Amino acid sequence: MPTLKLILEYDGTAYAGWQRQPGQATIQQSLETAFAKMTQQTVSAVAAGRTDAGVHALGQVVSVRIDRDLTPWEWTRGLNAHLPPDISVRAVELPAPDFHARHKAFGKHYQYRIINRSERPALARLGAWHVYRPLRDEAMAAAARHLLGRHDFSAFETQPTDIVDPVCHLQHLTLTRNGDAVTIDVYADRFLKQMVRTIVGTLIEVGMGRRTPASLPEVLASKDRSQAGRTAPPHGLYLMRVDYGPLVDADTPEKGRTGEAPEGLR
Amino acid sequence: MPTLKLILEYDGTAYAGWQRQPGQATIQQSLETAFAKMTQQTVSAVAAGRTDAGVHALGQVVSVRIDRDLTPWEWTRGLNAHLPPDISVRAVELPAPDFHARHKAFGKHYQYRIINRSERPALARLGAWHVYRPLRDEAMAAAARHLLGRHDFSAFETQPTDIVDPVCHLQHLTLTRNGDAVTIDVYADRFLKQMVRTIVGTLIEVGMGRRTPASLPEVLASKDRSQAGRTAPPHGLYLMRVDYGPLVDADTPEKGRTGEAPEGLR
Repeated sequence: MPTLKLILEYDGTAYAGWQRQPGQATIQQSLETAFAKMTQQTVSAVAAGRTDAGVHALGQVVSVRIDRDLTPWEWTRGLNAHLPPDISVRAVELPAPDFHARHKAFGKHYQYRIINRSERPALARLGAWHVYRPLRDEAMAAAARHLLGRHDFSAFETQPTDIVDPVCHLQHLTLTRNGDAVTIDVYADRFLKQMVRTIVGTLIEVGMGRRTPASLPEVLASKDRSQAGRTAPPHGLYLMRVDYGPLVDADTPEKGRTGEAPEGLR
Repeated sequence: MPTLKLILEYDGTAYAGWQRQPGQATIQQSLETAFAKMTQQTVSAVAAGRTDAGVHALGQVVSVRIDRDLTPWEWTRGLNAHLPPDISVRAVELPAPDFHARHKAFGKHYQYRIINRSERPALARLGAWHVYRPLRDEAMAAAARHLLGRHDFSAFETQPTDIVDPVCHLQHLTLTRNGDAVTIDVYADRFLKQMVRTIVGTLIEVGMGRRTPASLPEVLASKDRSQAGRTAPPHGLYLMRVDYGPLVDADTPEKGRTGEAPEGLR
């Protein structure tokens, strides 16, 4: 059965996240419904990142197996005609049949947006976290540098399980300010549950002077969620892009995993 | 009676524009209601730009005369507590008593946002115009240069009246592309009704190859609305900033009016 690779954009405001849940509007359900309307077939959509309620995406990747032979252009136009206005398909590709959006991903780029000023924003109210206390960018950047590299990120995971490997390789964590708009870009091979939002919440506490940059290694070493900061709210978070690399050779287990974050991020 | 100068941000999506209208939600009515709740006084708010239905603002300026002696900080906090989430006061100043947001303005910066790609946007759907045909940026920039300077802009005015002087000094009109996001920045001493949206609609027709850059001087000279392009939709338009200059001397009538657009715009 042919496999489709979809690049999805969505405004997460009105949704209970990616994953199908009884009685709730979700991205997965909206997409599967659009496939059903278009093809009269029941499909199961797999997302690279199972975004939480309220989280947005500009480059979510989804794989779908479906027995219908259409061109990428026909899939894009057809699905966009059946999806609600706050979800859109940006592109469709026809990858190798064994493509799997989650298992094959080797890197993801998340962006977190903050409005940092005393007065609440009106236009960005649904797309950025309003932090009204002044933030010290330098302290936040110094704290971020302590998190770079390959670490056990258990301290930054909500509801940790024993099943998931807690080691992630954080290749990129930068803070950019443009006036009162602060953007935090994160790139890693994999992420634990609510890891980006917990990293952001912790950096914000550093920015407010409530903890020091030098305390970050201790937080990591503790592997204890209560040592990290609060979880930043979901509406500032965007899944920007998911990268898929070549299969990993037995000889070079780190191939494609230790490289720099791609061009757009530097 | 003291005068207040307010800097207002709003998401125009849910409003029938600035101006109070019976049975409609408007920005003016929401603001005057917030003043009434806060002070139990009835005020009349004057805006620098009477934005149309669906148009947004990041720096609308409003003047209000009110008999209450509070600090700018108290006004900002108090009004924001009573305004809906899609309207916010960014700052309050206490100008000279004769300050008038509309009569004293000597320059305004509008920004128009476009998403230029074949697939419809989901996240920016309420804040940018989706133009799905490819645009030729160079042709649009060439057309824009023909509009710079002091001209009779009657051809770009919707519902022209004989009352208003149709001559405007367009000091800045630039196009910036960042991937599929195209931004058009406009700065002028004054604007006619729907002038920015008609300029944008005309530039887009140039970008699609439906008219040439060289045709723009003829459109201006015609003073005929039917010669210009379609009116771009309101939801891509933002009032960014309003500038107030020194009083104009009799000796130097153009003082403060012929200068370059301010720093942020260059």
